[in-house]
Amino acid sequence: MAGYNQLFVPGPTNVPEVVRQAMNMPMEDMRAPDYPSFTRGLFRDIAKVFRNDSGRVFIFPSSGTGAWESAITNTLAPGDRVLMSRFGQFSHLWVDMAQRMGLDVDVVDVEWGTGVPAEIYAERLAADKEHRIKAVFCTHNETATGVTSDIAAVRAGLDAAKHPALLFVDGVSSVGSIDFRQTDWGVDLAVSGSQKGFMLPPGLGFLSVSQKALDVAKDTTKNNRSNRCYFSFEDMIRANDTGYFPYTPAVQLLRGLRAALDLIEEEGLDNIFERHNRLAEGVRKAVSAWGLRLCAKEPKWNSDTVSAVLAPDGIDSNEIVKRAYEAYNVSLGVGLSKVAGKVFRIGHLGWINEPMVCGALSVVEMSLRDCGVKVTPGSGVGAALEHYRLAAQKTVAKAA
Amino acid sequence: MAGYNQLFVPGPTNVPEVVRQAMNMPMEDMRAPDYPSFTRGLFRDIAKVFRNDSGRVFIFPSSGTGAWESAITNTLAPGDRVLMSRFGQFSHLWVDMAQRMGLDVDVVDVEWGTGVPAEIYAERLAADKEHRIKAVFCTHNETATGVTSDIAAVRAGLDAAKHPALLFVDGVSSVGSIDFRQTDWGVDLAVSGSQKGFMLPPGLGFLSVSQKALDVAKDTTKNNRSNRCYFSFEDMIRANDTGYFPYTPAVQLLRGLRAALDLIEEEGLDNIFERHNRLAEGVRKAVSAWGLRLCAKEPKWNSDTVSAVLAPDGIDSNEIVKRAYEAYNVSLGVGLSKVAGKVFRIGHLGWINEPMVCGALSVVEMSLRDCGVKVTPGSGVGAALEHYRLAAQKTVAKAA
Amino acid sequence: MAGYNQLFVPGPTNVPEVVRQAMNMPMEDMRAPDYPSFTRGLFRDIAKVFRNDSGRVFIFPSSGTGAWESAITNTLAPGDRVLMSRFGQFSHLWVDMAQRMGLDVDVVDVEWGTGVPAEIYAERLAADKEHRIKAVFCTHNETATGVTSDIAAVRAGLDAAKHPALLFVDGVSSVGSIDFRQTDWGVDLAVSGSQKGFMLPPGLGFLSVSQKALDVAKDTTKNNRSNRCYFSFEDMIRANDTGYFPYTPAVQLLRGLRAALDLIEEEGLDNIFERHNRLAEGVRKAVSAWGLRLCAKEPKWNSDTVSAVLAPDGIDSNEIVKRAYEAYNVSLGVGLSKVAGKVFRIGHLGWINEPMVCGALSVVEMSLRDCGVKVTPGSGVGAALEHYRLAAQKTVAKAA
Amino acid sequence: MAGYNQLFVPGPTNVPEVVRQAMNMPMEDMRAPDYPSFTRGLFRDIAKVFRNDSGRVFIFPSSGTGAWESAITNTLAPGDRVLMSRFGQFSHLWVDMAQRMGLDVDVVDVEWGTGVPAEIYAERLAADKEHRIKAVFCTHNETATGVTSDIAAVRAGLDAAKHPALLFVDGVSSVGSIDFRQTDWGVDLAVSGSQKGFMLPPGLGFLSVSQKALDVAKDTTKNNRSNRCYFSFEDMIRANDTGYFPYTPAVQLLRGLRAALDLIEEEGLDNIFERHNRLAEGVRKAVSAWGLRLCAKEPKWNSDTVSAVLAPDGIDSNEIVKRAYEAYNVSLGVGLSKVAGKVFRIGHLGWINEPMVCGALSVVEMSLRDCGVKVTPGSGVGAALEHYRLAAQKTVAKAA
Repeated sequence: MAGYNQLFVPGPTNVPEVVRQAMNMPMEDMRAPDYPSFTRGLFRDIAKVFRNDSGRVFIFPSSGTGAWESAITNTLAPGDRVLMSRFGQFSHLWVDMAQRMGLDVDVVDVEWGTGVPAEIYAERLAADKEHRIKAVFCTHNETATGVTSDIAAVRAGLDAAKHPALLFVDGVSSVGSIDFRQTDWGVDLAVSGSQKGFMLPPGLGFLSVSQKALDVAKDTTKNNRSNRCYFSFEDMIRANDTGYFPYTPAVQLLRGLRAALDLIEEEGLDNIFERHNRLAEGVRKAVSAWGLRLCAKEPKWNSDTVSAVLAPDGIDSNEIVKRAYEAYNVSLGVGLSKVAGKVFRIGHLGWINEPMVCGALSVVEMSLRDCGVKVTPGSGVGAALEHYRLAAQKTVAKAA
Repeated sequence: MAGYNQLFVPGPTNVPEVVRQAMNMPMEDMRAPDYPSFTRGLFRDIAKVFRNDSGRVFIFPSSGTGAWESAITNTLAPGDRVLMSRFGQFSHLWVDMAQRMGLDVDVVDVEWGTGVPAEIYAERLAADKEHRIKAVFCTHNETATGVTSDIAAVRAGLDAAKHPALLFVDGVSSVGSIDFRQTDWGVDLAVSGSQKGFMLPPGLGFLSVSQKALDVAKDTTKNNRSNRCYFSFEDMIRANDTGYFPYTPAVQLLRGLRAALDLIEEEGLDNIFERHNRLAEGVRKAVSAWGLRLCAKEPKWNSDTVSAVLAPDGIDSNEIVKRAYEAYNVSLGVGLSKVAGKVFRIGHLGWINEPMVCGALSVVEMSLRDCGVKVTPGSGVGAALEHYRLAAQKTVAKAA
Repeated sequence: MAGYNQLFVPGPTNVPEVVRQAMNMPMEDMRAPDYPSFTRGLFRDIAKVFRNDSGRVFIFPSSGTGAWESAITNTLAPGDRVLMSRFGQFSHLWVDMAQRMGLDVDVVDVEWGTGVPAEIYAERLAADKEHRIKAVFCTHNETATGVTSDIAAVRAGLDAAKHPALLFVDGVSSVGSIDFRQTDWGVDLAVSGSQKGFMLPPGLGFLSVSQKALDVAKDTTKNNRSNRCYFSFEDMIRANDTGYFPYTPAVQLLRGLRAALDLIEEEGLDNIFERHNRLAEGVRKAVSAWGLRLCAKEPKWNSDTVSAVLAPDGIDSNEIVKRAYEAYNVSLGVGLSKVAGKVFRIGHLGWINEPMVCGALSVVEMSLRDCGVKVTPGSGVGAALEHYRLAAQKTVAKAA
Repeated sequence: MAGYNQLFVPGPTNVPEVVRQAMNMPMEDMRAPDYPSFTRGLFRDIAKVFRNDSGRVFIFPSSGTGAWESAITNTLAPGDRVLMSRFGQFSHLWVDMAQRMGLDVDVVDVEWGTGVPAEIYAERLAADKEHRIKAVFCTHNETATGVTSDIAAVRAGLDAAKHPALLFVDGVSSVGSIDFRQTDWGVDLAVSGSQKGFMLPPGLGFLSVSQKALDVAKDTTKNNRSNRCYFSFEDMIRANDTGYFPYTPAVQLLRGLRAALDLIEEEGLDNIFERHNRLAEGVRKAVSAWGLRLCAKEPKWNSDTVSAVLAPDGIDSNEIVKRAYEAYNVSLGVGLSKVAGKVFRIGHLGWINEPMVCGALSVVEMSLRDCGVKVTPGSGVGAALEHYRLAAQKTVAKAA
């Protein structure tokens, strides 16, 4: 079909042109003597995106799932007790991994559409006087339901209980797009991937680790409690300290990463967060104008990177997504697992701007109407664009 | 700024991804023994896009302006009388070139917003019993005003008068996007460029020539009436007949051209014309919904590749274009020459689809409101998307 | 520096232009409804390269090291006895991984410069009447020393002993470049990576598995003996069977993979093997002409993908490699571990041809002379090119 | 065939990777308000490459042939007397163009293998007391024979005669590769193209003009002696002065040009000239080692960008070129016109380095032997690489 296939899935996200240019490269030798001067800048600048002021970051040739696994196997051992919560497909999968890795998982199930239950976490941590809980897990942004959780509140619970548990955060669809502060929030292991806020193709898993977690990992190594090689901190640290990797890194993506980090630096993290909030708010105004509701139960849970919209009763949300793809060349996200057929998702993260979102909202309107939802043509996109317009005026006013 | 800078100028147009891929190439030797097997397919398939069943096409490393010049210098001589009409910046520039090349130009000036005056042409041709008029020039699609002319009517006038004048057509912004039939309409010299319906970067001028024009050119060569080398038919024919070029061709663009011709073949010319009409009609519905008018005076002049919209009284159209670019990353076309400050132009040709146009219309709405035009948010894009939606249903119904 | 930096490391290898073109793509949605029609062809065609007629292949977003780990953790459990051999840095690393994954490794250390000791393996297998050995590991091509082993001989030993142990093969630097026949040789788990014979950037690990190994993996899953998620066969099989992946795949590399598999199909595996042999033989003739020796102890160990050349006594091989890179823009491989400073390596695998190898050999000559090795200028490259020339004549004669 | 097809034709030349990256771009609007800030840097930096300190440069979407034509039609008129010389296919073609454009050409034919006859020019200029000669033409580097001429000597002749004729120089295959000094040498119109020393794909013609020539052009405009539009200085100047172009420029190539000019700046013109001389000298040593001779009659004519080598008696040079292409994937240049079948050409200009040239020389040796020329394998490439090696040592010594 003619024209771009536009991506409004919550990852992979659109790859900026300068990143594409940087990846259009002949092969290179990752053992070249000048390679470390390249890799060192990457480690430094990824840490900035995580706002990790100490500790270090790991770059795995993997998806974010690999980084999840690395976080667990390097700092925890089978039998360790951990506190987790489940409220969407991705928090579910993390629980599943933790259980399969042999952890003793205390799962708090909360309603889909809400997020990490910081109060319940605080209670359990306060009650755990013997510090049996070794780690607390939080899905910062649940991509399946469009819900963002309050990590600072979880940290407050840990601090209030003076609990030494490690704080794990899945930031796959938040880091680089939504405010995230590893050091300020005392996050010990923060996971992300290349294909969301980092605006790269998939293929790199990022794991940003606090000094405390590195120390724990060192002990684990001594005790040899968990089997691992590919995702081993120890091997990575030894090689990364020389500017190299313990096995062949994904060199093409690393060159793209350099360009992406430069873009992030140039726009500025705070401006990026503001842009994501602005774009997301427009989408939310469109949803309201259509008379529809988000999966997120309250505004405080609203995600600035993805909106999961509830289809009206009697309408299969999959049909809406299918229609958008087949008739109008736009990829939306389907509902997953418990919300399959009930929600459709609009990703609005990464290298994206107002006209792109307006185009997507237009297609959503067409698809909704095609599927029998009575929305007024132009109502949603009109609400969004008016929000963008007023926001742009404020930006200009502020600059002046 | 984040996100694509979207192009809604009436050329250059968006380059399809497969064309970009094809142009991402190492350099090659255009004198290689297997090069002719590549170039021959190009000549054949460009002719198909012009619907030129006999004669031949020339590919110049130039813009469309170069192809204009080639058409003139190879078939006419200083002093030759030609019939032209002027109703926009591009028809104006062609008249200017003809005069500077020493032709004796009979210019018919008609109102901007109308097109080639086929009736006046018919009268003049009928009156020219001595056949002093050597050529008749038509701008098929005036890019400055969004006006498409009726070439078949001009041919009818020539035929009615049994007049032997050559028929020159500027198809820069029509060929490959709007119905064009060189052989059926008896067009002798049809000019186009790479950066519009051919969906390539600028850099190639195409000239599609009838057998009659080739014969005239041969005589001209003998008589050596006009000085030319670079744009010489004779040199080109001699080299092209062997599969090569008389000087170094733009090899990278030629590889892109191959991919673009394949895309055109795949979608089918008639489907392409239908898509352009559908997208254009949506834009026109948006213009109506905004309460604005096109520069084109009557529906029969409406162009399916570009819409020139009149700004309301008291509003500088340049400000609208500036706002769209600076605040929303969208490139629109400004008004040129006589209509500078009075119209803004939305290009909707080439590799383009519904969500792209809806995004552009959204930005136009934002920019109009920013500039003080009272349009209802969502009104225009809503009208367009409803048109696209209904059109898509018809397509499905037809296919079923 | 001007001009290509030419890669003659034994991986990553040069990426063919059509593969680069295919990877120059906008992002795509790996959950699109038509994605399975794309992935199914990949699985089918990778299996062809491994000559795996039954079983299945896995594609991990990882390096080959990840595929090693997957092979082990899905079919073996801590405490399982395995038979391995060590004769270079990569066979060493595999032993190290096996030990760290808790296997009970029976390591046969043989001289570096030789390969898998098939006779010793046969003896041990014959002696293992109780079938305590669960798996036999072979490094098909030891990249560190330029040694290729005889996998068919190992299979013969297993068959002679009627031993049911699984046969693991590291084919990272052999599959797709040197004759490899998974089904014929009864290989159960064959590992490779994207950046060698598959001619892609690094980032994909391939694991080709026999039906027998899949059955074993299923049991292991039941018994839950080993912790794994990212590299789990079970998760992969469930998702791959629907044409998708259990987590985000490296979509850009997968598009490159499609182009690379098409190239392999087009040239033909047997022709590819012949080309690698021809190019390697030229390099070996150059080494002889220089009066130098390979690390490989006998011709039967010679690798057709990489030649490790012994520096003369008193010369640090690292200096030769450094000189080639800094003065002449050519990347060679250094000696690793035991042979550090003693050998330099010339990779001659992947998308490569005669003039590229001759350029590399010319640089080796310059670097050797720069480092004080008395070789006659032109002697090595002359010997190689004469070999290539005669080989080319034979090809022509054969074709005629 | 596997591996790069290596280009050793004297243009198009290899495109540097950063230039390829820069051209891998989505389409852009060449009327955008910020476009002039981009184009102004181009004009400034192209002038630096020509070492044109005053005057201005023009960038045409054309080949170098177009720039030739522009130079003539803007400053001369039919009937004007000009002094030219002919000693190869490209100087021949320029004479042909001048004659066809109606100039009164005084052609000095000299032996192919020699260059511009500066003494004869000086005599004719001295004899032309009435200044009937309006312009003197020099082909700086005759690409067909590998001959470089002495432009400073021609200038000296003009100065000695106090002759006001314009000095035209064809620098297509010299500018950016061989020492060229427009202002110092008083060159009025210097022509080049994108696909040689500028390291771009073909598609741009460059014309660098002195203030004197601009003044002459202005007069010509007034007098309207020559018909031109596409190549008109006047139109270009009017548009360029605002940062735009009179018709759609080849925007993709212009982005590549930016990257190429940055590369040239980075390496430094003098270093570039030295590299070309070094590489060329190695080729010449190879030719000597083979017992062959250059087409250039004396060392003073030797070109540093292309070597035309005479095939031994009885050997068809076309066969050598054909063999290199078909058997070894290397493109050499054939002999053209008078020297067809007699010479083959090795281009050694642009983005090129030692291992690339050594690879090419290796292929030449193979092809020579395949065609029955008795050269010792390794003799030529050995001579060249020893030259490169010693030159590299000198560079290091100088830097120390």
